[in-house]
Formats: sequence, C-alpha cells, structure tokens
Amino acid sequence: MSQLRYGVAYYDEYMPYERLNEDIAMMLEAGINTVRIAESTWSTHEPQNGIFDFTSVDRVLDAMHAAGISVIVGTPTYAVPTWLVKEHPGVLAVTADGPGRYGARQIMDITNPVYLFHAERIIRKLIGRVSKHPAVIGYQTDNETKHYGTAGENVQLLFVKHMRQKYGTLDEINDRFGLDYWSNRINSWEDFPSAVGTINGSLGAEFARFQRGLVTEFLGWQVSLVNEYKQPGQFVTQNFDFEWRGYSYGVQPSVDHFAAAEAFDIAGVDIYHPSQHELTGTEISFGGDIARSLKRSNYLVLETQAQAFPHWTPYPGQLRLQAFSHLASGANMVAYWHWHSIHNSFETYWKGLLSHDFKPNPVYNEAKTIGRDFARLSQALVDLRKDNKVAVMVSNEALTAMEWFKLPDGRNYNDVVRWLYDELYRMNIECDFIQPGCTELSRYSLIIVPALYAVPDEALLRLNEYVREGGHAVYSFKSGFADEDLKVRTAEQPGIISEACGISYSMFVTPHEVTLRSEALDTGAADPAVNTWMELITPDTAEVLFRYEHPHWGEYAAVTRNRFGNGTATYIGCMTSSGLAGSILKSAAQEAGLWGPDQELAFPLIVKTGVNRQQQRVRYYFNYSDEPVSMVYRHGAAAELLSGREVQPEEKLELEPWGVHILLEHSSGQ
Amino acid sequence: MSQLRYGVAYYDEYMPYERLNEDIAMMLEAGINTVRIAESTWSTHEPQNGIFDFTSVDRVLDAMHAAGISVIVGTPTYAVPTWLVKEHPGVLAVTADGPGRYGARQIMDITNPVYLFHAERIIRKLIGRVSKHPAVIGYQTDNETKHYGTAGENVQLLFVKHMRQKYGTLDEINDRFGLDYWSNRINSWEDFPSAVGTINGSLGAEFARFQRGLVTEFLGWQVSLVNEYKQPGQFVTQNFDFEWRGYSYGVQPSVDHFAAAEAFDIAGVDIYHPSQHELTGTEISFGGDIARSLKRSNYLVLETQAQAFPHWTPYPGQLRLQAFSHLASGANMVAYWHWHSIHNSFETYWKGLLSHDFKPNPVYNEAKTIGRDFARLSQALVDLRKDNKVAVMVSNEALTAMEWFKLPDGRNYNDVVRWLYDELYRMNIECDFIQPGCTELSRYSLIIVPALYAVPDEALLRLNEYVREGGHAVYSFKSGFADEDLKVRTAEQPGIISEACGISYSMFVTPHEVTLRSEALDTGAADPAVNTWMELITPDTAEVLFRYEHPHWGEYAAVTRNRFGNGTATYIGCMTSSGLAGSILKSAAQEAGLWGPDQELAFPLIVKTGVNRQQQRVRYYFNYSDEPVSMVYRHGAAAELLSGREVQPEEKLELEPWGVHILLEHSSGQ
Amino acid sequence: MSQLRYGVAYYDEYMPYERLNEDIAMMLEAGINTVRIAESTWSTHEPQNGIFDFTSVDRVLDAMHAAGISVIVGTPTYAVPTWLVKEHPGVLAVTADGPGRYGARQIMDITNPVYLFHAERIIRKLIGRVSKHPAVIGYQTDNETKHYGTAGENVQLLFVKHMRQKYGTLDEINDRFGLDYWSNRINSWEDFPSAVGTINGSLGAEFARFQRGLVTEFLGWQVSLVNEYKQPGQFVTQNFDFEWRGYSYGVQPSVDHFAAAEAFDIAGVDIYHPSQHELTGTEISFGGDIARSLKRSNYLVLETQAQAFPHWTPYPGQLRLQAFSHLASGANMVAYWHWHSIHNSFETYWKGLLSHDFKPNPVYNEAKTIGRDFARLSQALVDLRKDNKVAVMVSNEALTAMEWFKLPDGRNYNDVVRWLYDELYRMNIECDFIQPGCTELSRYSLIIVPALYAVPDEALLRLNEYVREGGHAVYSFKSGFADEDLKVRTAEQPGIISEACGISYSMFVTPHEVTLRSEALDTGAADPAVNTWMELITPDTAEVLFRYEHPHWGEYAAVTRNRFGNGTATYIGCMTSSGLAGSILKSAAQEAGLWGPDQELAFPLIVKTGVNRQQQRVRYYFNYSDEPVSMVYRHGAAAELLSGREVQPEEKLELEPWGVHILLEHSSGQ
Repeated sequence: MSQLRYGVAYYDEYMPYERLNEDIAMMLEAGINTVRIAESTWSTHEPQNGIFDFTSVDRVLDAMHAAGISVIVGTPTYAVPTWLVKEHPGVLAVTADGPGRYGARQIMDITNPVYLFHAERIIRKLIGRVSKHPAVIGYQTDNETKHYGTAGENVQLLFVKHMRQKYGTLDEINDRFGLDYWSNRINSWEDFPSAVGTINGSLGAEFARFQRGLVTEFLGWQVSLVNEYKQPGQFVTQNFDFEWRGYSYGVQPSVDHFAAAEAFDIAGVDIYHPSQHELTGTEISFGGDIARSLKRSNYLVLETQAQAFPHWTPYPGQLRLQAFSHLASGANMVAYWHWHSIHNSFETYWKGLLSHDFKPNPVYNEAKTIGRDFARLSQALVDLRKDNKVAVMVSNEALTAMEWFKLPDGRNYNDVVRWLYDELYRMNIECDFIQPGCTELSRYSLIIVPALYAVPDEALLRLNEYVREGGHAVYSFKSGFADEDLKVRTAEQPGIISEACGISYSMFVTPHEVTLRSEALDTGAADPAVNTWMELITPDTAEVLFRYEHPHWGEYAAVTRNRFGNGTATYIGCMTSSGLAGSILKSAAQEAGLWGPDQELAFPLIVKTGVNRQQQRVRYYFNYSDEPVSMVYRHGAAAELLSGREVQPEEKLELEPWGVHILLEHSSGQ
Repeated sequence: MSQLRYGVAYYDEYMPYERLNEDIAMMLEAGINTVRIAESTWSTHEPQNGIFDFTSVDRVLDAMHAAGISVIVGTPTYAVPTWLVKEHPGVLAVTADGPGRYGARQIMDITNPVYLFHAERIIRKLIGRVSKHPAVIGYQTDNETKHYGTAGENVQLLFVKHMRQKYGTLDEINDRFGLDYWSNRINSWEDFPSAVGTINGSLGAEFARFQRGLVTEFLGWQVSLVNEYKQPGQFVTQNFDFEWRGYSYGVQPSVDHFAAAEAFDIAGVDIYHPSQHELTGTEISFGGDIARSLKRSNYLVLETQAQAFPHWTPYPGQLRLQAFSHLASGANMVAYWHWHSIHNSFETYWKGLLSHDFKPNPVYNEAKTIGRDFARLSQALVDLRKDNKVAVMVSNEALTAMEWFKLPDGRNYNDVVRWLYDELYRMNIECDFIQPGCTELSRYSLIIVPALYAVPDEALLRLNEYVREGGHAVYSFKSGFADEDLKVRTAEQPGIISEACGISYSMFVTPHEVTLRSEALDTGAADPAVNTWMELITPDTAEVLFRYEHPHWGEYAAVTRNRFGNGTATYIGCMTSSGLAGSILKSAAQEAGLWGPDQELAFPLIVKTGVNRQQQRVRYYFNYSDEPVSMVYRHGAAAELLSGREVQPEEKLELEPWGVHILLEHSSGQ
Repeated sequence: MSQLRYGVAYYDEYMPYERLNEDIAMMLEAGINTVRIAESTWSTHEPQNGIFDFTSVDRVLDAMHAAGISVIVGTPTYAVPTWLVKEHPGVLAVTADGPGRYGARQIMDITNPVYLFHAERIIRKLIGRVSKHPAVIGYQTDNETKHYGTAGENVQLLFVKHMRQKYGTLDEINDRFGLDYWSNRINSWEDFPSAVGTINGSLGAEFARFQRGLVTEFLGWQVSLVNEYKQPGQFVTQNFDFEWRGYSYGVQPSVDHFAAAEAFDIAGVDIYHPSQHELTGTEISFGGDIARSLKRSNYLVLETQAQAFPHWTPYPGQLRLQAFSHLASGANMVAYWHWHSIHNSFETYWKGLLSHDFKPNPVYNEAKTIGRDFARLSQALVDLRKDNKVAVMVSNEALTAMEWFKLPDGRNYNDVVRWLYDELYRMNIECDFIQPGCTELSRYSLIIVPALYAVPDEALLRLNEYVREGGHAVYSFKSGFADEDLKVRTAEQPGIISEACGISYSMFVTPHEVTLRSEALDTGAADPAVNTWMELITPDTAEVLFRYEHPHWGEYAAVTRNRFGNGTATYIGCMTSSGLAGSILKSAAQEAGLWGPDQELAFPLIVKTGVNRQQQRVRYYFNYSDEPVSMVYRHGAAAELLSGREVQPEEKLELEPWGVHILLEHSSGQ
C-alpha cells in the first residue's frame, strides 16, 4: 500500500438531509482519505427485483474523487431486501431455532441458489459500474460474513454428501465418531439424521467445520466475481471479525479465518474494544496479530470505534493512542465505524465520529490531529514489517470441541487463549498466530499452544519434531487430548506430545482450594490459586516447575518442563492466575533467548516494533494508563516522530497519560 | 357518586359449596356495599355455542339486591371458553412467539371477527338481561384489557393499511423511519414485512402504538354495546392496570390509558402493592394519581389486595391505612380482589378477604372497621376534589422508545418516572399526570418531565412556551432526544428544549466512579453518586447546579437551571441518587411557590388533601411506618373524623404505627 | 441373591479397538463378577428394520461366561435407531415444547404403537436369544424410563378417556378441578383442551399423574414380554433414578416408583452423589432407603460413580467407603457406570473405572481391594435385613402439587424432604419410605411427613388413627392442605390432621426477619431463623414448642406437639434451620423410644445396621470426613470383618479418614 489510510464508513443513504459536501469538507479537515460505502444497502440500490438505482453510489464516488478521497466499495449482500424475502422466503436460513424471520441483517442461507442468483446480479451490476471509477481503490465482499447457523434440509443434504466424500463409508464414520453410543449408529445413508439435534460431539463439531467451509466457499465465490471486474492496483478485502464478547476478542467460532483469507488480496478486520478506564490495548494487539498473520502481511482496520457506546466514548488522548496502536501492529488503515451517528433503527447508540448533530465534537477534534500525523508520517510508518519469533497456535477445531466439552466453570477456548496471550502482551513479547496445519514452525523460537484440544496426529508430531530440533513449546492443559474427530486418544495423556513433554496423566479434577507450590520458579507475589481445571500429572523425564498444594493431589505435578532433543517443552496442567502464567511464560521466553530491554518494561508501558519500507527500525511506546509514566530508552539513537525530537540511548523518556512515542532508529533496521 | 363504596369481587361460580346467603351475611357485617361479578366466567354463562345459562348471575343479583348490596357486572370476554377455541382456533392471538395455546385468560386476538361475533353476543345477552335489575349500578367491560401481543397476518395487514393512511407514501415512511439502514427499505406496499421481526426501533415502536390503538378501539366497541343497554344512573368502567413489576407501578406499556379512558363514564383501576415491612403507600398514590388524571375526576379501585400473597398479608392496621389512602387520592370505591380464596386452579395463593376456610380472620375483622367508617363518613369523604399545581408528564411513546433503546443498566422508563415521582410523594407534593398532548399546561405551576425520549415537536414547543410564560419545568436526561417516530433530532441536544433550558450536549457516557459536585444547592448527606446515564452538558445561558466529579468529564455540567422568559427550566442530565433528586425537586417546588407546612413533613408521614362536596378541606395524615410518629398540625381548626376529636392549629398530633388521621377543616375549602 | 455382586456396565460396542479379553482380565483382577450390557445400543443390534446383528452380545456373553462373570442384559429400547425415526417420525414424543428432534436418548412417545411394535420385536429377539445362555442372571427393562413429557394429540385423547373413566362426568371434573375459573369450564367432551397449556393446577397435576401411569404401564408391558423368556433363577429389574439435581436425590417427579416397581422381581437404582470434600453419604443412604422400600427387600445399585466427573473423582478411600455404604443400606450389588471412559459423543467426561487409556489407575486399584473384600465377606454381608421403626411418607402427588404451587423462595418438595431426611441421617436414625396409600403404618413407631400437600382424606384419617393408637407423627408445614385433586380443603387448616395435631391456622406468610423462640425444647446453638414459609398457628389442645419472634406474628405458634389418644403429633409450621429441625426430630425420636447409643454418635460418624442371613447383627461404622475419628463401641462382642480383629463392648475404635468398620456381633441378631 502506498500510504497510510485514515478512513470512515460513510452512508449517504442514511442521511436525514443532504449533507454530502459538508461531510466531505469535514472529512478533509480531519485528514480522512478513504471511505467505505455500499455494503449494507441492497434495498436502496435494487429497490425492486431487477430494477437498479445507484444514484447514491455514483454521487458519492464523484464527490469523493473530486475531494481526493479514495473509496472502498462493499458488495451489499449481507442484508437482503424485503422484496427478495417476500418473493422467496426460502432465502432465509433455517437454523437450530427453526425458520428465519425477516428483519435483521445476516439471516439468509448462504447456500440458497435464489439468494446466490440475486446476490451475483447485484454484485455484477454494482462492481461493474464502479470498477473503473478513479476514486475506487478496492472492494470489500459482503461484511462480517458467517454461516448464520444455516442448517435446513438442503444444508443437511450437502452435509451428508460432504461426509460421504470425506469418509467414504458409514462404517468409517460410525467408528471414528463413536455413533454406536446411545443408538446413534447410522447404517444407511438415507437414515442420516439432521445434525441439528445431535448429542454426538464429533458429529456436531464436524457439522460446525462444514458450516465454516460454507463461509470459505461463499467468500471465495464473491471474490471470483469481483475479480472479474477488479482493475490493476485495486484490491479485494473482507471484514473479518472476532468472537464477540461485548467487544472483539478471540478466534471467530463461525469462520476459519486462515482458510477464508486465502482468496483475498489483503485482510481486513473489525476491532472493537473496551475503552475509558478499561482501555488496555490488548484487543487492538490481539486483533492485529491475527489479522497480520492471516496473510503474513499488513492489514486494514476496516472498522473500529470512534465514540461508539456510552461506555466507550474515549477519554481525551485515547482515540489517538488507539490509532497508533493499530499501526504498531501492522495496520495500514484505521477506519471508523462510522462517520456520523445514525438517527433511526438499531445502532442509534453506536455512535460515529460525529454525533447526531453533525457538529465538531471533542472526539472529532482529536481525529483531526491523527489525520494530520498519518499524512505527515505516512512514508515512515506504512507497511511496517514484523519478524516475530513467538507464535501462538490457535484452532477453530479446538474451539468448537471445547464448546461441546466445556470446562467446568464455563470458561471457553478463547478464555484460555486470552489467559496466555494477554501475558505475552503485558510483557511486550510480540507474536504471530499460526494454525495446527502450519508447517513452518521453525520460523519461531517459541510456540505457545493453548488448549489444543482436538488436533490431528500430524500436527502434534510436527510439534514434537519442532522441539526436538531446538524449538521451545509451551502447552496448556487439555492440549492433544482428542484427535480431529474429537475422539479422545487411547494413549496415556497428553497423548502424542507426552514424548516431548516427558509426562503422563490419566486423571483430572476440578480444583477446590488448591494452590501451586513452586519447585523451580520464583513467582513473587503471584496468586498461587488453581482454577477451572487441573490434570494430575506424573512426570517421566520432565522437571517439575509446580506441584499442587492439596491433601490428596499433592503428589502430582502441575507444571513441568522437559528437555527434549535440542529444545524444551513446558506443560501447564492447570489454569493458573494471570501472574503465575506470566512467570511461566517469562521463564520460557528467557530460555528461548527472547528477553531484552523492552521486555523489562511492562504494561501499562507497551512496546511494539517493526521495520519500515526504508528498512528502518520503528519502535512505538504506548502508555496505557491515566497516569504519566517514564522509561529509559535502551536502543540506538532515534528520532521521535510525533515531536520531531532526537532521542539518545539510555535517555529517560516521559509518556503522558494515554501518550505515544514513535522512535525511528537512525541505524538501519534488524 | 352518591356514596363511598366498599366492595369485593365475588365469584359464586367458584364456590366449593353453596354459600351465597352466608357470604352475604358476612359481607353485610363487614360493610361491603358493592360486589363485582361475572367478568371471568364466559364458559359458565355460555356452556355451549349459543346456549346460555345465567343462573349464577340471576341468583347473585337477586340475593344482593335483597341484602341492599349493589352490583357491578363485568362482560366476560377476557377469558374465552374451550368450545370457542375448539371450533375456531384462529381466535387465539398469534404473537411474536407464534400461535397461541388454550389455557390462560387474555390469549385471544382482539381483532378477530369470530371472537368479536361471539363476544358481542354474550355481551348483549348478559347486559340485556341484567341492565334493568335494581341491584346493578354499573358495568365493567372486559378486564385488564391489553392487546396480548397480537401480531398475526391479519394484524399485519391492518398495520400496513394504518401505515398507508397515516403516512401516505412509502418514501415518507422510508425517510422518517430510516429504513435504508441494513436494507430494510420498503419499495412496494406488497413487500411490507411483518413488524414482528423488525430491528428498526421506529417501525417497532409504531407497531406498538398501533397495537395500543387496537385496545382503545376494542374497549370503545364494548362500551358502545353496553351503552345500548345502560340505564340512567348506571356507569360503564374499565379495570385499568399498570406495569406489573411483581406489583402495580408505572405507565402501562400495552395500553394508552388516556385514550382508552375516553369512552368510559368513570375510570377504574387495579392497585396491588408491596406490604408488611415494605408498605410505603407510594403505589397507592401513583395508581390513584394516574387514575384520577385519566378523566380528571374520581375513580374506582376495582381491585386491590386483601390478604393476597404470603409476603403481602397485612400487618394489623395496614388494611385500614391502605383503604383510607385510596380515598385520599380520590377513589370513591375500594374493592378487594376478592371475597374468598380460590380452592383450585391458578390463583390459589392470591388470597381474598376470607381464607379458604371462609371463617372470620384478622384481616376480615379489620375490614369490618373500615366498612363501618366508610358508611359513617361517606358524605364527608366521597367525591374528594383535587386541584394539584404539579403535573408529571408521561408518555407511552417514550416508554416504548426506551424499550428499543435501553438504558445501559437495564433501568426502564418507569424506573425514571419512579425516581422522580417517589420523591414528590415523599415530600407530600401531590401531582396529576398529563401526556405530551396536553394543551392546558398553564393549570400547573410545576411540570416534571421524566425521560420524554420520543415526542413531537409541538409538545416541546408548548413546554418552551409554558416556561416562557412563567411555568416551571424539570426535565430529566434523554428528554427531547427523538421525535415521535424515534428519529433522533439532528439539532444539538436536547433539541427543541435547549432553548428553554439554555444548554447543549453532543456526548453522553455511562458513569463509572462519577459523583456530583454541587455548585448551588445544599444537598446535605445525599448520596452524590451518578448512575445509569450521564450527558456531558455545556451550559449556554443556564446556571450550573451540579457538575460531574471525574478526571475527564469534570468540565461538564450535570444539572442546570435556566431562567427563560418568566419561568425556569431545570435540566437533570444524569440519574442521581433519590436523595439528590429530592433536593433538586424541592428547590424547584420552592421556586414555584409550592412549599408549605405539609411539605415540611416527610415520609413516613404522608399528607393528602382535597375538598369535599361540601367545599370543606379534608386532610389525610398517614403514618407509613411501624413506629409511632408525631407532628404539629398547622392548618385551621378541624375535626378528626375517625376519633371525632377537635383539633386546634399548632396542636401536636400522634399517629400510631400504620395510623391514620382525617382532618376536616371547619372553615370552607380552597 | 446368593452372593454380593460387584459390577460394571460394559459396552463392547463403544470400544475404540478390540479389548474384550484384556478387559475381562482386568475385571477379574478387580473382583468384578457381574456386567450389565446392551441397554443402549439398539441401532447396533438392529442396524436396519428387521435385520438383526447380535454379534457383540453373543461374544460378550460367551467370553464372560468363560471367565465366570455373570451378565445382566438390558432391553435396548430407551434410545431409538435413526432408521426408525426416519421411517416414522411420529415415534418421537410431542411435548409441551413441540415436536421432538432426533439425537438424544429418551425422546420417544412411549405410547406410540410404531415404537411399541419395534420395541417388542427387538426385545423378543434379544431376550429370546440370550435367555438360556448360562452367563445371564437377569434382565433390565429399558433404562431410567420416564414419560419424556409425551403430550401429543394421541396422548391427549388417552387422557380424555382416562378422565371420563376416572370421574364419569364433566360436571364432576368441573367441580373437583374448579374449572369455572377463568372460563376453563368444559361442557362437552369434544371441547376438552390439551392439558399442555392449562393453568389449572388440578388438571395439570392430574395430567402429570396420568403421565406417570404411562410409565408404569410401559414398564409392566416390557416385564410381561421378558417374563415369557425368563428362566428359573433369573430376575427382571429396572434402573430407577431420582430427581436429578446435578446428582441423585429426592422423589422422582416423572415416575411413581412404588407402582412401577410392582412388576419387577427386584428393584435397581442409579445413585450418583457429590464426592471429594462434599461426600457425606446422604445420597447413598437416601437412594438406598427408597430402593429398599419399593419392594421391602434388598436391591441392586445398577449404576453409581467410579471416577465420573472432574469434581467427583474420589479421594483415596472414598470409593471403598461408598461401596460398603451401599451394602449397609441393603444393596446386594454395587455396579459402576461404567467400565471404561467413552472416547466420543456426549458422556466423554463421565469417566468409568478406567480412564480413556484403559490403564490401571488409583481408582481402579482401590476397586481391586473392594472386589476382594466383597468376595471374601459375601456370605456375611449379602441380603442384609432391616427392621426400621421410622418411616418417611413421600408422595408424587405432593411433589407435583408443589410444582404448581411453589414455595416463595423456589425450594421444592424434595428440598423439604431433604431438610428432614438429612437430619435423620445425621443422627443415625435409619428409616423406610412409605406412600400415603400405605395401610401398615403400625409397623412404625415414628412417621415423618414432609409437606404432604395434596393427599386424599383416607390417608390423613389413617394417620390420625395411627397417632390415636400410639404412633408418633411429625408433620411439616403445608401437610394436608389440599385433597388429591389439589382442591384446597375448606375446613380450617391443616384440615383433617388438625384433629390429631390440636391446632388450626388460616393465614400464612413469607418470613422476613423472623426467628423462633423456644418454649419447651433446648436447641443449643441451632440457628433460630425461619425460612421460606410460615403458618400462623393457633394451638387448640397442642403444646407450643416454638413461637415466632416478630413484632406482629409473635402471638402465633410455629411448632407444636399434641398428645392425641395414645400417641403424639408434632407439627412444624415453618421451615427451620437444619439444626433446629434436628432438635425437633431428636425430641420426637426420644419420645418414640428410638434413641440408643448409635444415635449419640453423629455425622460424620455414620452407623447402619441390619441382620444377615445367619441372623447375625451387622453394624457398619463409617467416617465421612477427612479427619480420623474415634468412638466407643457399645454393643456385644463382635468381629471387625475388614481387619478380622475382635472387638469388645465399650472398646474405643479409631476410624481413619473416609474409613469403614464392619462389626459382626457374635450373639444372634435382633
């Protein structure tokens, strides 16, 4: 990408009165150089079946072009028009809850040919019309696409065919999935029941994987259509989003991001996060690390918050801190959802950069400073390249499996991911995300593996091999327990990785008044409590880092470390406090040779780094707190880009509350 | 009404054995002079389609008449017979949850012609039969009527026609309701989707208003039928009820009481309230103030509790306190639901005046004293007239709108109403209720406006004018934010009322560790915490009464007061503690000249007053506590009616726990 | 039964690889002498309609026989095959939630003739095939059978016919059930509405009773089929289970255990219970007392936990303690669900004796000691006979009635049962369970009657007579309130039992800050708080044991005792703390002459006793705690069977944590 992009979603169609020129003037003042349009308003662009009206698209493109603002055009397929549903109610997804009902977005069956026919037509009409417009720099297909739980009879039929193709025979399926249990055995293809009611975790998880595959297929199909029109220099992206827990965090349960991203030129994401006194930057970092990992490249933040909700309205300085945090993770664009606040309907209180009164306000005013800095620093900051030595291995399959077999206290897979990822973040260890299918493990000095519950043998054998050849792996509890069909391994646990970990267990319990007793690590004041889950580990060759403190389970190991070949495998057999997880990860990082001066700094002082297009090392320092902090800069002479000030090694730097420094080292990067 | 009425609901049909004469003897002993019958037992009166059996009605009327007890006859249409549902299942309302199921009451589609045909026939048969019976003094149409969520295809069709009639064109609707959003735009009338699934708050609220209109229409139709039979001196009433929160409080979400009340001769209500250690009288006062405001006249308490639930069984003295509290708010009848406790079915533990054993019990024995006093004091206490100078403006539209756009902590519209109303109650400021459509604002010296979120321009302009001409208005947060279609105003907030309030804001946040800092009011020990919602107000001409205490929001005003024309507009931009709300309202009342000796008294000592038919001032003093209290009487020489004692100005009066005094001033009222 | 049985459920069909011989070898090592097979795998045994494959049954029977292990064969009817549901979707139960969906077990309509036809065929095929196999000692029909809420149109039709047969006329039904209420009156049989939507508690409870009758009928039908094949010496049993509250406790709401047990030769049960620090033995005792009472004989524990859930994995010693606790209550078999842990599907984390790795583990190793002792002590411990003098009267009808008319704080019928039963358990008073229909009350010196809310007159009259003739009865609140149709009695409460109790009440309230004031009993430090419910009792002839401490209810009695004829009736009018309930029950037991040295011991030291086939007195002493305890043995000279040591009277015995002693008294029993 040739420059940093600062953007907003813009809905001319939603405006309560004519505002286009005035909006553009205010955008220019704020340094907005990109808008995203059209992804939500099919019924406006095709008011009746086959009758098209692109007035608002045309006029926005022309006006933006005149103002020098670029446009990303979305295909408007994620919200269907009333006329389509009235004519063909079958386009609505039938889910586990029954038939759908018109009203919301994202309610259709993405395999339904009536839907696909009409979707294709509007895509071709819209993209065909705009592709040569000089304002257009790229396209977004659909929006936050998922499978919406589509599970009607047609989908079940596809699923049966998928099963036959994948497994060949019912005997194979009955065996792998354990269908004899509770008389679920299927003895004839015609008898295959709907997966909706199944109580078989293996079958249920396979259906979920199949549904994720529908998303990959649907997005690939949209990309192939758009590619027919795409002009040189234009890109196609998708707006991926994460598990929604009131904000964005965690592996998306309904989409295989890595598979779905393949068809696209560049990854785009939604990142919404807590703010005000709860702003930590963790979600920005997490979302960015995932997004960057999808295509191992820079990405676009297609949506993030401006004012958003009443509990997110940023404190002064936070909008700016957030914007540079996105860049520091490798984003090339930061775009707000959305320009103005909507006056009707559903997201009235999900406010944009402007309030409902369209007047300048403190948040908009802060955006103006960001726009100015983005423009000024674009060449120094665009296309930041990372070469992280740490990876976190995540898996849709493990996530789904742990929905079927839940942890006793309701924590889910992403809670386990978060428990470890957040500690890396807090100690300024940057990481990539990889999937179990990754065959380039040797890129990394340290691989963190949270709760890799359901996983094929090959992936575990690769991890063993990785350690043998000198890698460092850190596993959490439940890793390696079941295969990719959720069949529990019949070997002693943790199964295949027992070899590298040098341990075994056959019992696990829910902790009750259990703490950890360190045998090897100094954990300071960290809370020693054990939560959620504990495995009763017997070390074989492994060193015991922690044992359980408990009248009956005290003989068992809780956390172990094993030298295996040239490497080390650490196994954490229980959920610990965050402080204790941090100690374990710190120890692993030190052993992997990944501990430097920036790791001595710690949250709320966050460091992110990379190399720019000029091969210069860029270091971002963020103060994620409401108090000023100071730090000693321990790298080579650099320029602080926001102030223009020169900084010398060992110089003490002050960061104001929610402050940012960007240091460009004068010597070349690496 | 010629006398105070003391009543019970009486169900001869439910009796486990023949009891009529015995019951009447016990009623006479308790001073019961009115019973309500027949509203629940259609299947008894019409056991098969077109076959009628009014035995129980006839015999009850005759026996009551012989005993000198009057009867209110209900139309039995709110609970449909099994045969009707078996023959025509379509009479059951189809709701957002799908088709109905026989069993409970209040499950029919009140627009269904099959239902209406049969309802009309039973009404004509029953009312035609009883109207000339000398025991009958009036009629109740149906019971606690609502729309029961009726939303089936026929109702949707009516709604589309309503929309076309109201708005003319789809363009108008698309524009006002913001239907472009998420592709909800409707471009042809045939495409109009069911409102059931809509995510558009404007459309959803309009449908809710339409449903309330169905109730008004249905009740009007019933009244027109009954009026054909009504004899001179007889009345028609309806049993209105309130938001049910385990007891009665708040604007009824499903009925526009003011509109529905128009067809009736006199308003009737249900008032159920906490009891025992939780008895405060607030709900009696609230329900009475609404009921009296509906027709600006006296009303009937058609149902209130005797023993009721195990957590409501009254302490000694409470039943009596409650009865006089109803009178003090303007009730002309206090009737219990119900005479006896029911031996089967559903409301077995909603006990009546008698327990299941029909024996005298402490509550019945207390009722005997009430009946005696009602009879003795009837002429002094009946038809109490109020001339309140304070009004609270409430709105079904604002309520519905705030269901669509909820406050962050789940508080609803009625919680905001309660937050302010209860403080008025506690400081003995009596009030009426008005709606935004009220054009006689000048009746009042002070108008309280809680969260008037969705409201037409005209109403706000009238309020501005009211202030300009010398009125005092107190607005809470969120008032004036959106128009009657729930479209947020595009002006700076609070929109139209900014003029009178002299403030503006464009941001609002969820409070976290925020308190209020007074700049002008002494609030004593009142809790300064801010809850639920806070608007970041910039005063223009307004005086700041409170600012926020917060590191980032401290520059903004929280509560302001503005002199505008000859009046004052106070704006409360956040949810405060009750103590602090009390301080603000006290200040407003003082400024409006509404502070006298009875306002110096405060809860648990409650004062209610009015003028009787002899133009004498009546003052009720209630002790809503389990401890004796004393007070100084600061009005003219009076007789205490319960004891017959004379009371002089400045005399100290003692009130026993849950005690009552009724003072009839000797000089004429006003 | 000729010997103690130690068993497991065994699923050859579920095995991930061929393990039969290896499993049998490990079973023999653990002393397993019985396995239960086949009850869950219809689709394996009948892979297609009419095509049978009993390979796994045959080979397991042969191999077990060769190893000397006996087999109980289950009819596989509680989980239906996919092909049956595909061919005939109508076999799935239609419930209050609508039509069923294939997937789980226990989803069929047990009255559906298509289901019954196929069930009969597989039963005849399977049982006909195995009945003469020498390994087979008995049969289990179906498993944990219930009615699964079946309530479709066909079931409603049966219900109407049942109603006509039971009550004769609709007038009778309308009257008994109070159907005039809310227009529910039924005036023609054709109008009879589905019971699913009813709000009439009487009708709803009658439907629940009818549904329980369907279970009795279904099980009786299965037994009659199996009996056609049963060989001499073989038995038929059923696996009854209890209310599931995360573990087994309380009367089963969906089955009348006493009625259903009649058809069987021997009762079998599921008993799952809290473990680890929450293990008390109470649920083992409760389940055993019910099971033993069903046929007044010994019973089989067909399922109990080995490792089970992560929060149940037993501490060392607990599995052993549990096994002997079952024997001490009269069990002749203790069988684990299940042998191995399942690798797929739904109950993957409900672990068996073996973990997923099939290796010996601490729990399996402990089982080996149990198996050894069972074998060694079989003749001394089998067929333990009890002659308890205390009975607890329980009732499905009272349970259902209290679901319709719930206690204010959500406690249910079984919570009330537990409140009293647990105190008996803790003071080592062993008891039987009886139903209200029991006509042999004179067997008992003391009858405890918790919340016998809905009950026919005859049962109460029998209880009065029992007291008159010298019996001791203890009633809790709500007993006797309503008749068997849930019609509240019209007499003064507690109705018929008022005579024996010498009290009356007509009001009841929810307690708020109420305590009990003792007038006659020393209750030490027991918590005096009143919870849940309190009746305002006026004593007639009764002595007051406790009054309420409350400003307004202090005049009323809370707990009373009345001499009536030759006996005593104690009435507990409120929910007390457990300590206080214990005091009341202790007093009643003392009065009934049931207090001996073993009652002076108390939880955690639990005593169970009985007489063996040699007429010798056996006494079990259990330490249900994690600390050692000591006690003085106060009976005749005995042998401690586990250690072989002789014990003299007044000798001090030590019990290790979770320890067991079994004392066989040398003098003959009784």
